[in-house]
Amino acid sequence: MDLTAATRPLSSAVSAAARLLSARSGLLLRAGKDGLTVGGNDSERAVRLTAEAMVHTDGEVLVPAGPLAETLRMLDDDLVRLVVEGSRLAVRVEGGRYALPLLSRELNLPDMPPKVSEVDGHALVTALRTVAGTAAKDDALPMFTGVRVQSFSRELRLTASDRYRMAVATLPLRSAGEPIDALVPAGLLAETAKQARGTVGLHGDGTRFGLSWAGVAVTTAVLDAGFLSEKLIESSTVDTTVEVAADALAAAVRRVGVYADDRRVLTLEVGDAHLRLASAKQNTGEAEETLKAEVSGGRTSPSFQARYLLDALQGFAGERVRLDIQPGMRACVIRAVEPGEVELTYYVMPMLPR
Amino acid sequence: MDLTAATRPLSSAVSAAARLLSARSGLLLRAGKDGLTVGGNDSERAVRLTAEAMVHTDGEVLVPAGPLAETLRMLDDDLVRLVVEGSRLAVRVEGGRYALPLLSRELNLPDMPPKVSEVDGHALVTALRTVAGTAAKDDALPMFTGVRVQSFSRELRLTASDRYRMAVATLPLRSAGEPIDALVPAGLLAETAKQARGTVGLHGDGTRFGLSWAGVAVTTAVLDAGFLSEKLIESSTVDTTVEVAADALAAAVRRVGVYADDRRVLTLEVGDAHLRLASAKQNTGEAEETLKAEVSGGRTSPSFQARYLLDALQGFAGERVRLDIQPGMRACVIRAVEPGEVELTYYVMPMLPR
Repeated sequence: MDLTAATRPLSSAVSAAARLLSARSGLLLRAGKDGLTVGGNDSERAVRLTAEAMVHTDGEVLVPAGPLAETLRMLDDDLVRLVVEGSRLAVRVEGGRYALPLLSRELNLPDMPPKVSEVDGHALVTALRTVAGTAAKDDALPMFTGVRVQSFSRELRLTASDRYRMAVATLPLRSAGEPIDALVPAGLLAETAKQARGTVGLHGDGTRFGLSWAGVAVTTAVLDAGFLSEKLIESSTVDTTVEVAADALAAAVRRVGVYADDRRVLTLEVGDAHLRLASAKQNTGEAEETLKAEVSGGRTSPSFQARYLLDALQGFAGERVRLDIQPGMRACVIRAVEPGEVELTYYVMPMLPR
Repeated sequence: MDLTAATRPLSSAVSAAARLLSARSGLLLRAGKDGLTVGGNDSERAVRLTAEAMVHTDGEVLVPAGPLAETLRMLDDDLVRLVVEGSRLAVRVEGGRYALPLLSRELNLPDMPPKVSEVDGHALVTALRTVAGTAAKDDALPMFTGVRVQSFSRELRLTASDRYRMAVATLPLRSAGEPIDALVPAGLLAETAKQARGTVGLHGDGTRFGLSWAGVAVTTAVLDAGFLSEKLIESSTVDTTVEVAADALAAAVRRVGVYADDRRVLTLEVGDAHLRLASAKQNTGEAEETLKAEVSGGRTSPSFQARYLLDALQGFAGERVRLDIQPGMRACVIRAVEPGEVELTYYVMPMLPR
């Protein structure tokens, strides 16, 4: 293999592939008449990107992803040459040579499952930012580390929960095809949310799920336990509704949260036309803050983890939200008063007060 | 105590005091006819700042520094009221009350030692950024966690070492007074480097050392073992001199360092008119990069820790540096070819090659 490429785009493609793959895997570089394909796979996922390159000699090599990405990122030269020299892939610029060992592991890039639909990348990224962040980072049950991706005739629904809260987002489908119902690892979708742009293709064949955009294709095995659903959460007994600006509520939660107890729990006291946040900690003092709010229904004072409220409200930045509060230990349901293209519903479980 | 103050400047003063004090200490607030004094002390250091305030009732309280700083930083209101309410200091804005417990520990703010000289704050900050960062973060010997501060008739000299490298900076004194020779905790000086501006006063009385600028006064006990000096390092046997741009060398060290062994050691091979950096690691490959350089003296190939070279070169950003290389395991001496107001000398000990 021997090729010359523009450093920046090549660096972007290699870095994107390295981040989409789970840590320390090998990266496959395949140079042919169509330019360069960068990809990799592990037991769980496969990634494939295309990059432009002037290919002098066709070929295919597997090299460590991290050092290649790091080297390309730090180069100042506009052009870079990648050339196999014995048991090394040499990255060459004027005055510099960086040589990576060729790995010998067998590697093939599986084909993408068929594309069944498309969504707007911006809407998908907006939805994923909140939903993928709601899944647990680490849990014995895959259901709580994945995002359930469901396509219906006109909309895509994304659902995630870590037991203590659940986020559900819907966004319009650009085209309707075979329905998808897959539980996808949240980590991959969180990285996707950092990279995807333009129109994003949704791919699926029952056992695998894939996303594609702007030269990037990602596939992943589908996790079990796809019964994650809003139906798990009771939301029919709302007796109090509060409307308030999401950003003002988030700022108040942050300030009053400084004085919260070790569990970081604070209380929302619903008054006639206001919401009062209160917290207290044995040795740190206490805080209270009152926000004007539109209230309907009875008085109540549920308690919540400050962090969960902040995570939820972040998804509604710049918007007015409605809090549907249910009695007892039932979830508080947060929605935008005037939802946009992406409709987000966030359920936060209350905590026992002190 | 009862006072009203502009939130931003009060927040700045309280945050600065909290950062200059070692972690979780109490903060003294003293309100009187001169406005508000914010300060604190622990076994090692004392800090005192002044802030403007409209004082309604004189008084003095001790409160936890962290929560007060955090609360003030997050407030959106222009004005804030601090008022003692029972056993609490209440921070009040419209719609919000944050109440901190009053601490009972005895606390007094010692007077500053006398001012003996002054330096330009910008020059001091530039010098401290490199020198304070060179001291060890943690070492049984105070000598390696402190910066030796010495004033002579016309210049201030700052010296620090962690055994593996030493930084020495000199800068002009604005006025000459009693000489200072103090070993000062590097952590305090590193924080000072983030805050100091304008003209900085140097204070000393033999057992304490102090700095003052723009309403801030900091004093600290002086550490033992002030014999830290360039004289500890042999630098009379230079046989090779290399001149090169500091930024280009740093960028090359960063790139080649990716391929360095576990000790992160790379070799500088001095040629006739170039400097060649080389590194190799069993499983990661190898790298080499060649920089044009002005060389005088013989060929040599010392090895260095990449990180130490980078720390050293950071102090010479934008400048051309001269490397004086000594034979064997003696230090490499790095200086600017055309030093400015702050004259920095950096000694880096070589490593055994593989």
